[in-house]
Amino acid sequence: MCQLLGMNCNTPTDITFSFEGFRRRAGLTDHHTDGFGIAFFEGKGVRIFRDNHPGALSPMADLVGQYRIKSYNVIAHIRKATKGTVNLENTHPFIRELWGENWVFAHNGTVENIEICPNSHCQPIGTTDSEIAFCCMVAKLKERFSKKPTEKEIFDAVVEITSEIAQLGVFNFILSNGEWMIARCSTNLHYVCRKAPFGTALREDDVMIDFRKYTSESDKVTVITTQPLTKNENWVKMKNGGYAFFKEGDVIYEIEGDLPECEAHV
Amino acid sequence: MCQLLGMNCNTPTDITFSFEGFRRRAGLTDHHTDGFGIAFFEGKGVRIFRDNHPGALSPMADLVGQYRIKSYNVIAHIRKATKGTVNLENTHPFIRELWGENWVFAHNGTVENIEICPNSHCQPIGTTDSEIAFCCMVAKLKERFSKKPTEKEIFDAVVEITSEIAQLGVFNFILSNGEWMIARCSTNLHYVCRKAPFGTALREDDVMIDFRKYTSESDKVTVITTQPLTKNENWVKMKNGGYAFFKEGDVIYEIEGDLPECEAHV
Repeated sequence: MCQLLGMNCNTPTDITFSFEGFRRRAGLTDHHTDGFGIAFFEGKGVRIFRDNHPGALSPMADLVGQYRIKSYNVIAHIRKATKGTVNLENTHPFIRELWGENWVFAHNGTVENIEICPNSHCQPIGTTDSEIAFCCMVAKLKERFSKKPTEKEIFDAVVEITSEIAQLGVFNFILSNGEWMIARCSTNLHYVCRKAPFGTALREDDVMIDFRKYTSESDKVTVITTQPLTKNENWVKMKNGGYAFFKEGDVIYEIEGDLPECEAHV
Repeated sequence: MCQLLGMNCNTPTDITFSFEGFRRRAGLTDHHTDGFGIAFFEGKGVRIFRDNHPGALSPMADLVGQYRIKSYNVIAHIRKATKGTVNLENTHPFIRELWGENWVFAHNGTVENIEICPNSHCQPIGTTDSEIAFCCMVAKLKERFSKKPTEKEIFDAVVEITSEIAQLGVFNFILSNGEWMIARCSTNLHYVCRKAPFGTALREDDVMIDFRKYTSESDKVTVITTQPLTKNENWVKMKNGGYAFFKEGDVIYEIEGDLPECEAHV
């Protein structure tokens, strides 16, 4: 299993505080040591850094910490391999072009026996179930809409297509096109929306940050993650089958889901 | 206009010596200051570093110099913008998935009035003529072959499709799927095949390297570039309309082209 981290904001934001806590789980405080990846949107472009070394120790992850790239949308992933060997092509997040946009996807869980659509224009490069699922989703969206539809139509179609895939297993994911971010929960996904009045946050390794030093009154920053990264904030625990569509740091559309995590997967 | 650098080898090779000479042209010895990018294949995966800052000064390029990634296939590009603004999505090399592989492409020159194929599965994300041309090529290859054909069939199809695009302007490019590399010359492209007996090379900034310290008898390393990077090696100057297909450091297929550069573009 793996862990996910996403950030969606209304102002370019440095994810370092959250990322540094998150990557500690990749070898220091937890065992997600089979690679890490992080994608930063910058306009319609995207920077992706991936490594098949543990996130806690990777020089690539050190660079990310030092470089302090500011972005509206970021997706990161630390991997504990369940399907597919440990190599670069199996490292999340995955990326494909759809309707002239970069689409970035990271998955936590395993969808069993998912099959590659052989005639689809979007084929997996590696051997993970996650990339197969992502390619199926992209191909079905492109079949359904030859041109980019509205955001609500995208959200509804993603919910429909991925609810079907989710019947094959555990399908927590984060998806972004650089304008919005969609989070889907099977078992474990939490989010927090940070906005004024800003206060302090205490990371699980007891590092404190005072957001008042780094923010302005109008800022909105949503952080999505498998397990909460701070001890003193109100993280929303998503339910099984729950979806949230974030834009500029706000929840725009939401499907609450059926069951709390513990009932859905015992 | 821009400059191109490619490397194709039969052993994972560190491109630092060539890249450091090349990136000096991005702001120090030449004016290609509108961004740089470099892609390293690693198995079927690829690492891409791009920056919209000059290659000579970019911290991302510093990292590439320090990280010493070894690869069989590398493509780099320094940009002097002619079409499209200076931003990340307009920065080469471009990447698309084709037949379950990463295809990486960088272009030098301008193809005038090239049109986006609106119904193609492969759409440009940025606004450069280069990315439009690459998307057209990928879409036409996918239309022609639903499954991956032989290397010779790929080479012949790339020659046919890109010869047509080249009628629209200047179309020097380097293309790779991580297994092979295709170079196409309109005006300026040179390559050198380094193999035993290895000697020394003197870079244009007078930095010397002794390849005997870094190579074994069986190594073959081909470097392709817009303008030769060393003063004392036998660089092959490609002709207008010339193509070369490199694999494991060797030329496998070649089309010599019609005219030497000076006659083709006066």
